Amino acid sequence: MAELEPKKIISLMSGTSCDSIDAGLCRVNPDLSCELISGINYKYPEHIRAKIFQLFSGDASIKDVCQMNFAIGKCFAEACKVLISEFGKPDLISSHGQTIFHYPFDEKIDNVSLKSTLQIGESSVIAYETGCPVISNFREADIAAGGQGAPLVCFADDRWFKGKNVAIQNIGGISNVTVVAKDIDTFGFDTGLGNIMIDYCVNKYYGQSYDKDGRIAASGNICESWLDCLMQDEYYFKNPPKTTGREYFTKQYIENALRFAPKNSEDIIATVTALTAKTIASAYERFVYPITSIDEVIIGGGGAYNTTLMNMLRCYLPKHIVLKTHEDYAISNNFKEVMAFAVLGYCSYYNIPNNIPSCTGAAKRVVLGKITAA
Amino acid sequence: MAELEPKKIISLMSGTSCDSIDAGLCRVNPDLSCELISGINYKYPEHIRAKIFQLFSGDASIKDVCQMNFAIGKCFAEACKVLISEFGKPDLISSHGQTIFHYPFDEKIDNVSLKSTLQIGESSVIAYETGCPVISNFREADIAAGGQGAPLVCFADDRWFKGKNVAIQNIGGISNVTVVAKDIDTFGFDTGLGNIMIDYCVNKYYGQSYDKDGRIAASGNICESWLDCLMQDEYYFKNPPKTTGREYFTKQYIENALRFAPKNSEDIIATVTALTAKTIASAYERFVYPITSIDEVIIGGGGAYNTTLMNMLRCYLPKHIVLKTHEDYAISNNFKEVMAFAVLGYCSYYNIPNNIPSCTGAAKRVVLGKITAA
Repeated sequence: MAELEPKKIISLMSGTSCDSIDAGLCRVNPDLSCELISGINYKYPEHIRAKIFQLFSGDASIKDVCQMNFAIGKCFAEACKVLISEFGKPDLISSHGQTIFHYPFDEKIDNVSLKSTLQIGESSVIAYETGCPVISNFREADIAAGGQGAPLVCFADDRWFKGKNVAIQNIGGISNVTVVAKDIDTFGFDTGLGNIMIDYCVNKYYGQSYDKDGRIAASGNICESWLDCLMQDEYYFKNPPKTTGREYFTKQYIENALRFAPKNSEDIIATVTALTAKTIASAYERFVYPITSIDEVIIGGGGAYNTTLMNMLRCYLPKHIVLKTHEDYAISNNFKEVMAFAVLGYCSYYNIPNNIPSCTGAAKRVVLGKITAA
Repeated sequence: MAELEPKKIISLMSGTSCDSIDAGLCRVNPDLSCELISGINYKYPEHIRAKIFQLFSGDASIKDVCQMNFAIGKCFAEACKVLISEFGKPDLISSHGQTIFHYPFDEKIDNVSLKSTLQIGESSVIAYETGCPVISNFREADIAAGGQGAPLVCFADDRWFKGKNVAIQNIGGISNVTVVAKDIDTFGFDTGLGNIMIDYCVNKYYGQSYDKDGRIAASGNICESWLDCLMQDEYYFKNPPKTTGREYFTKQYIENALRFAPKNSEDIIATVTALTAKTIASAYERFVYPITSIDEVIIGGGGAYNTTLMNMLRCYLPKHIVLKTHEDYAISNNFKEVMAFAVLGYCSYYNIPNNIPSCTGAAKRVVLGKITAA
């Protein structure tokens, strides 16, 4: 194996909310520590963003998938160019891509598994446009190895927080946790809803894209009966490893749930915000505390800025647990996943296995990521 | 660059007729000559084949694309295992994949090009199941470089036939030609229909999957007026580089054409067979003879076994041109594309540019193919 050297890596991420591409220039060191040199949000052009949501909705053809793979690749390349114009070319680019489908279920056709995932944003376009080699398509190899292809950020969490007893809780569109503790193998899973349902309802009732600082939620009351009802979804009861996404928490899912919602829209926002907080706390009760004790919960993702959500989570968690943010550990909250995928890309480049089977359910450790030459 | 060594490569191909996966164990040498050690046809399981046709028809969801990518990857892996069980592991696997969409047209959204291509058959699944590194997804990088992502076999033709004045004519679902001559840069393009329309009509009128030895066509008469009409399609008049596929010659396209067909079904088969032959001959008249002279036409693909098609082509071509087969050059007709993609994969492995811009229209030479670790 080549001797490990520090690498400058532009890492690219576009989450399920797909408001923009997160692009970060990172320095990854041989011990897999990672520093963010600069991070930007690159807005998708309007029509492309609309087209991505069309892909999410399922109302899209193979032609759309094929074309958007290349179009999004171009957007990713443009995001890189913003960083390259300021900092010069990196050693490599690590691109998570835009997830448009994730199907971690054990169905079969002709005895062939249908477990699968699809991230688009063509790596060849990024490589050609930037002149840099690109690592991409991380989730496929984990699924090939029998895993769920998620969560992958666990790998970085494991390296960064080793020696502590912590839950690293990301609250994006979907929420996921990594548990790192001295006495166990690192494990993780999607706790369930993050901001998807909050954002959907805030958009539906207030025409806003999100609940800034959780102000709307703070003005409403939690409807306990509706909350209890929503907490009964079977996903929350499934044992980890488990993963979910927009394919499960669809518009239809949310609209069905809203049939039983309270009349007052502030109360709806308060309750769906509480749902995210309470499903996180109850996931710990069911799947974390029975295995290990934790001292800290380290919050990340857009949900970290929703003060009401944070206050609710504080209420639902045991008192002895300290709530921290990634910034307390010099990890950018906004660019944490970007930094994690820089580390994953670094490992892929050096052929170092970079999944954690206890997080994803894979049969073994494998090298995630494909290499596209510049 | 690493010193070039001969490599044993399993190459995988599944064409637009998708009756089976062509898998060939090849030895590729540093001079890019290639020997086929063993070749097999691996039949798709019935439901998977049906599902692929559903993808072709456009009547498929993103979920289908996502799942079939993994399911077809598994089939590709199974095809490899047949060869591995007899010959042991190769140094690497080169997988073309199954094309499900190819869109080489210059449309834009938000000023972003929609030119694109999509081959499925997940490389991570092949790599995991076989334990061999996989090179895959060759067409994307050419499109990223402004090319049409096809034809790619030109690259191998150029190496194999350098020093001659020949047209290498493949007649698969679609027909494509490579022209190699002493006084010009090698170029190539899709001449148009191959067996797609013949197979469709034979299936429709006779319930057979193809016209064995061209017997049905031989029993009919060419309807010259309908043939003239079909020859007017604008594709045939476009200047190369140009590429086409099932996206253009759809079921709808064929059904529209059949509205003006002769009544007798033998005559229909004879005429659509003549169409393939005559579009090839007229493509040479329009786009080859004005640039260079050729001494030989070397036929490949399934169409080479259609005696009537061959006889018609002989009639339509100038008398001085010699018709040959790939076997005359010790290249397996059945596994020619497989051998070509073994060479493309070899180049990708060693980071050797392996597109030919004069064939694809790309702005420059680039390395095609992505590497997935074992």
